[in-house]
This record gives sequence, structure tokens and C-alpha cells, in this order.
Amino acid sequence: MPAAAALPVLPLLINVSMSLLGFVATLKVIPAFKHHFISAGLFGFDLNKVTKEQVPESQGVISGTVFLIVLFCFIPVPFLSCFMGDQCMGFPHDEFVQLIGALLAICCMIFLGFADDVLNLRWRHKLLLPTIASLPLLMVYFTNFGNTIIVVPKPFRAILGLHLDLGILYYVYMGMLAVFCTNAINILAGINGIESGQALFISGSIIIFNVLELNGEYHDDHVFSLYFMIPFFFTTLALLYHNWYPSSVFVGDTFCYFAGMTFAVVGILGHFSKTMLLFFLPQVVNFVYSLPQLLHIIPCPRHRLPRLNADTGKLGMSYAKFKRKDVSKLGHMILKVAELLKVLQIHQSQKEDDDVIECNNMTLINLVLKIIGPVHERTLTVIMLMIQVMGSAIAFGIRYHLVRLFYDV
Amino acid sequence: MPAAAALPVLPLLINVSMSLLGFVATLKVIPAFKHHFISAGLFGFDLNKVTKEQVPESQGVISGTVFLIVLFCFIPVPFLSCFMGDQCMGFPHDEFVQLIGALLAICCMIFLGFADDVLNLRWRHKLLLPTIASLPLLMVYFTNFGNTIIVVPKPFRAILGLHLDLGILYYVYMGMLAVFCTNAINILAGINGIESGQALFISGSIIIFNVLELNGEYHDDHVFSLYFMIPFFFTTLALLYHNWYPSSVFVGDTFCYFAGMTFAVVGILGHFSKTMLLFFLPQVVNFVYSLPQLLHIIPCPRHRLPRLNADTGKLGMSYAKFKRKDVSKLGHMILKVAELLKVLQIHQSQKEDDDVIECNNMTLINLVLKIIGPVHERTLTVIMLMIQVMGSAIAFGIRYHLVRLFYDV
Repeated sequence: MPAAAALPVLPLLINVSMSLLGFVATLKVIPAFKHHFISAGLFGFDLNKVTKEQVPESQGVISGTVFLIVLFCFIPVPFLSCFMGDQCMGFPHDEFVQLIGALLAICCMIFLGFADDVLNLRWRHKLLLPTIASLPLLMVYFTNFGNTIIVVPKPFRAILGLHLDLGILYYVYMGMLAVFCTNAINILAGINGIESGQALFISGSIIIFNVLELNGEYHDDHVFSLYFMIPFFFTTLALLYHNWYPSSVFVGDTFCYFAGMTFAVVGILGHFSKTMLLFFLPQVVNFVYSLPQLLHIIPCPRHRLPRLNADTGKLGMSYAKFKRKDVSKLGHMILKVAELLKVLQIHQSQKEDDDVIECNNMTLINLVLKIIGPVHERTLTVIMLMIQVMGSAIAFGIRYHLVRLFYDV
Repeated sequence: MPAAAALPVLPLLINVSMSLLGFVATLKVIPAFKHHFISAGLFGFDLNKVTKEQVPESQGVISGTVFLIVLFCFIPVPFLSCFMGDQCMGFPHDEFVQLIGALLAICCMIFLGFADDVLNLRWRHKLLLPTIASLPLLMVYFTNFGNTIIVVPKPFRAILGLHLDLGILYYVYMGMLAVFCTNAINILAGINGIESGQALFISGSIIIFNVLELNGEYHDDHVFSLYFMIPFFFTTLALLYHNWYPSSVFVGDTFCYFAGMTFAVVGILGHFSKTMLLFFLPQVVNFVYSLPQLLHIIPCPRHRLPRLNADTGKLGMSYAKFKRKDVSKLGHMILKVAELLKVLQIHQSQKEDDDVIECNNMTLINLVLKIIGPVHERTLTVIMLMIQVMGSAIAFGIRYHLVRLFYDV
């Protein structure tokens, strides 16, 4: 840090001010560019609305660009005290390169996400693109720190010792973290405001965590994270304003990629990737619950979002329908266990000569609808975001209490 | 440099090998993604062909992405000797951040160029986008060097002294350089293979210049430039293969932005921006000649590319047609002077009560057609590229001979 022990209050204040400008800019630019997106064919229809209007897609590209501009302008700010004079012991080149490298990974991810939105790439690309975009991050990490030694959790120390050098596995972990974060947000989607809402609450949780740690040993890392999380929070807030029920815009894959990579970047370079993952609790649950369909063990329809009942105006579960014989033994076992655990609703019927099975699509949103019954779309988003908040509360509980079971803190 | 005086032969060899892989990848990926671009509406029609086929647009996004991937993988290579052992006196953080910062500017430019292609932004954005993308570059320059002192050319030393601190003007110059480079390539366009061809020859010229300077005082800067120019050369060569007459793809604004920013980056960070501009001689001539139309002093039609004569299969000049009274006094003066200098062909006629003026569109391509008469499109591209080569020959002449009139070398 430029000013060794003292907190960089001025840079943080400047960051907040610029983020507020970014909030206003995002708020204004989104409606201004609406027609550009629609003429470019970047629009969709809201499947859960009765009226069929063209809703501009991929608006994450706007909040992402504003985020980039804010941070581009912010680049020299943390280092100003070094130019001013005597507080600074040598220019912190490694911090500087960390900032630029993080921006490179995020910028690349926004670009590739937008390319995906425009070109409708295949599923395998959804795994490839974040890997490409995290390359510069891994390279910067390799060149800058190269530290791949982790502290082993207490229960495993008898076997592995106190420290373990993961070597190349550490890079695999970081790459997979980026792929996970980007896709985890992408698959918890389908109702108005859910993608931008969850990203907003995750960034809010990270901001709280960073602020709590500001007086700790690793305050540099947390200041670094705040530099990214504050503008992310405010640009996403502006996006959520337009994306909130009834959505006048959709955020697109661009936003999910952008958000996921930003979280991965601060988690990795801020050295709190495990805590960061704790804030992804609902996404992890959704991911694990979705796995049978994502891996096509259970048939997966193109859309898994809940279905509107036009009469009541409420959303209910959506279903996958398939023949019994089309599912493998493993699939049937999963169906049975899930039904037993009461996390899956299954109907069986007969059609011609075939046994037909119908089960709700395996997403957290459908699971919530299974438990509480049909609700209005806005209510559903609010409930999902409350779950996100509860997840963060649990995460803080684990991080500040349960952690003693695993590490010395 | 990691290995002080010695040339980094190994990194350069690795760079060339990776660039060759990039060449093959670009060559293969472009046809593979053809239908993705057409389904996304990213296609155009070749105005100078009789058959009207859909030609995929914005293919610069592919060569640009491959270029980025090559350089992402290359990031640690120049610094490997520092990890290996004793050759290295301290890690060259400033060089490292320069590499990452350059990549950030280029990545951002590819992204914004692609956004422009997709969203069809307005003319004023064409000036704004390169400015945004060059922000990180300027910030890195500011934080890393901060040197804004230039050596004054001999004729002005009596007034200005030997050194002059341009201060903020230096940043304005760098920003304008990026805007100029990106747009200069964009406006020398309209026939098959011209955008990628000119960029290929400019990068080839820069590579020759860098190699010539490898044993000089500033060899670090030229090695840095080669790291970017070699992969750029090879990915662009693959793009040209598909873009050559008859074009099966168009390069799009994406490519012009990407190419221009890459040139600006190596010129600025390699500290040879004046020499770099010398290689833009045909682009400068085209820009100056175009100015009356770009500034709308002379009316400017939407397309200024030459026009196909379907009977002969040859391209001839294209014309702008307008009423005499619609042009200002300044416009008439320009028309008169240009006609006098024999660089403009003007027809006058009478239609109803108005005097109608028809003059060829003011582009270098039309000027060449005025001099040599109608030719086949492929021949025209070859001639334009020969002009580019001649321009580079003149540039080398100025750089290595005439330069003595202005600087002590």
C-alpha cells in the first residue's frame, strides 16, 4: 500500500464518488440505447408476461462498460500518494499490475460474454470463454506471486501437514473458480430481476466482509477488493432498477459472465476465494440440484424457468416430461431419492404404450415454488433475494465462528 | 529486460511459434463460425459484385480474439529468465505492467469495436470509443513513466530549447494518436482486402523497423513491439486470406479499431510514435484528401467506395452529386483548388432551375482510379497495397536519412 499502515481513505472516497457517477450514467444510458439493441436483434420476449413486447437483451454490456470506464479513470488514484511525496516507500508495482490484470480479465469477459449473446455460442463455449478470460488473471498471479501453498484445514493436517503446495492444481482451482462463478449466476435465472439482484447482494456481502476486515492483517487485499466491488455494486443497482419487475430490459449472459468474473477476480487476487464462495451458497445449492439436468441424466428442456398461470397471474413450477424408458438407471435412482427427500414433484402417467414421467425442473426457483406454492413473479424474486441474504448470514456465521474448527484464527 | 544486454531470442522464438499457431487457428475458425455471424444478422452484401450473397461481417473479432489468446498465453514468457535464476536483477515490474496495460487497451478496443459493429453506433461514438479504450494506456503511461518531455526538432530549438515538457498535451497527443490510427484505417476501405491488407503491410513495416533497431540503444522497446506485431501480422494474414478478392468475409469496424489500437499501443509504449505515423503515409494522404467530405464542407454520400461497371467488370470512380447552391463559399474554393491541382474530377450540369455539381468522392482509392482509369477490383487492391509499400519505403528514407535535418542521431 502506498501509505503503509494507514487506510487509503481518500482513494476510497474517490472510488465511491466515481461509482455514484457510474450509477447515474448506467441509469441514463440503458433507456437511451434501447432502440440500438432492438434494431440489432438483441431483444427477447418475457415468457412470463401476457403482453408480448420486445425487451432489449444483453444490457450487462452497458453496466459493464460503465464499470470499466469508472475503473479506467480510477487507475492512478490508489498510487497518487506515491507521486505526492514522502509517504511512499517505492512504487508498489505488484499492486499496480494486479489492478491492471484484474481489469484485463474482466474486460475480456465482458467482451466474450457479449460475443456469446450476439453469436449464440454453444454450451461448451460457456465453459471455454471464462477459461480464456481468466488466463491473464492466472498469468498475472503466476508472474506476480506464484504462491501456490495453502494452509491445510485442521482435520486433514494429520495426513497432509500444515502447509501444502498445490502447484499447478492451484491454477486449475482458480480457473475453475472463474468458470463456476460465471455459470452459477447464469443458471439461477429466469425471473425478472434475479440475475442482477443476486449479484447485487453478493457484492453487498463482499463489501461488508471487506469493511469488517479493513483493520485486519490483510487490509490491502480488502481495500483492493473494495475498489472493484463498490463500482460493481452501484452499476448493478442501476441495472437492477431497469431489470426489476416488470423488466424493461434483460441483463443477458454478458452480465452473468461479467459479474462472475468480477467476483472471481477479487476472490483470487484478494486471497479470500473460500469466503467468497460462501456467499454463493444459494448458487451452489442451485448448481448441485441442477446437476442431474445439466448433465442430461434427467432430460432438460430448453427453458427451465417457472410457468405463468395467465388466469391467476401467478408463477408455478415448470416441468420436464419424458418417457420412462428414456432415462438411465442412474436417472431413476436420482428421481427416487429426490422424491424421497421431498425436493422433487413427480407425476406418472400412461400414454399409448409408454410410461410417461413428469417432474419439476430442478432449479432452486422451482424448489421454492414447490414449497410455498404459486406466487406472483415480483414476490418470487423478493423471496429468492431473501434467500440470498439468508445465505450471506450463514456465510458470515461460518466465516467468523465455525471457521475455528478448520483453521487457527 | 530480464537479460540485460542480450537479446531475448527464446521469447521471440516462442512468440513466432505461437503466432504461427494463431495463424492456423484464425484460418480455421473463420469459416467454422460463418453461420453464427449470418444468423446473428452480422452480414453484408458486397456492393461491387453482381451476385448478391450474404457475406459475414466483423470478422476482425475472430482474428482479434485469437491474437488476445496468443498474447495471454505469452504473458509469462518474457519473464521466464527471471524465475530461472541468476541472469535477472530484480523483476522488471514496469515492463510487466506495460504488457498487461497494452493488452487491456487492445482488448477493450476489440470489445468496443464489436459493440459498434453490432449496435451500429453513431459517428461521434467512433471518436469516443478509441478514447475510452486508450484510457488504460494513458493511465499506465502516467503511472509507469509519467515522462512528457520531448526532444525539440532542430528548426524550433532557437525558440523552444532542446527539451520541452508537453505536460497534459502529451496525453492529449497519445489519445488523439489512438483515435487517428483507428479511424485512418477505417476510412481507407471499400474494396476487397484493403483493410486487412494495409494493416498487414503496416505491421510488416513496423516489424522490419523493430528488427533494424534490435541492436540499438532502445532495443527493449523494439522487442516489446515485436511481441505484439508478430502475432498481429500472422492473425491478420489469415484474415486477409479470407478477405482477399473475392471476399468470403468482411473485417468490420472491429478489425479497424483493433488494428489501429494495436499500432497506437506499440507506438506509444515503444516510444516510436512519430516513426509509426510515417508508416501511415497513405492513410494520412487519404485522411487529408477526405477531410472536406468528412467535415461535410462537400456533401458526403453514405458510401464512397468505387462503383462497379457490370458490363466491363471493372471498378470506376464513385461520385457525389449536389446542387451548387448547397455548398458554402469554402466548399466552392476547395472544389476549384482541387480541380486546379487535378486531384478532383468535376462535372457540371443543369437540372430544372438548379446548377448541379458532380465530383468524385474524395478518397485515395477514387484518386487512384482517376489517374489510372477503371480497373478490376483485385488489381485495384494490389495497386493500393503497392502504394502502401512505397509509403513504407519513403518512411524508411525519412526515418534513416532526412531525420538528420530535425534531430541529432
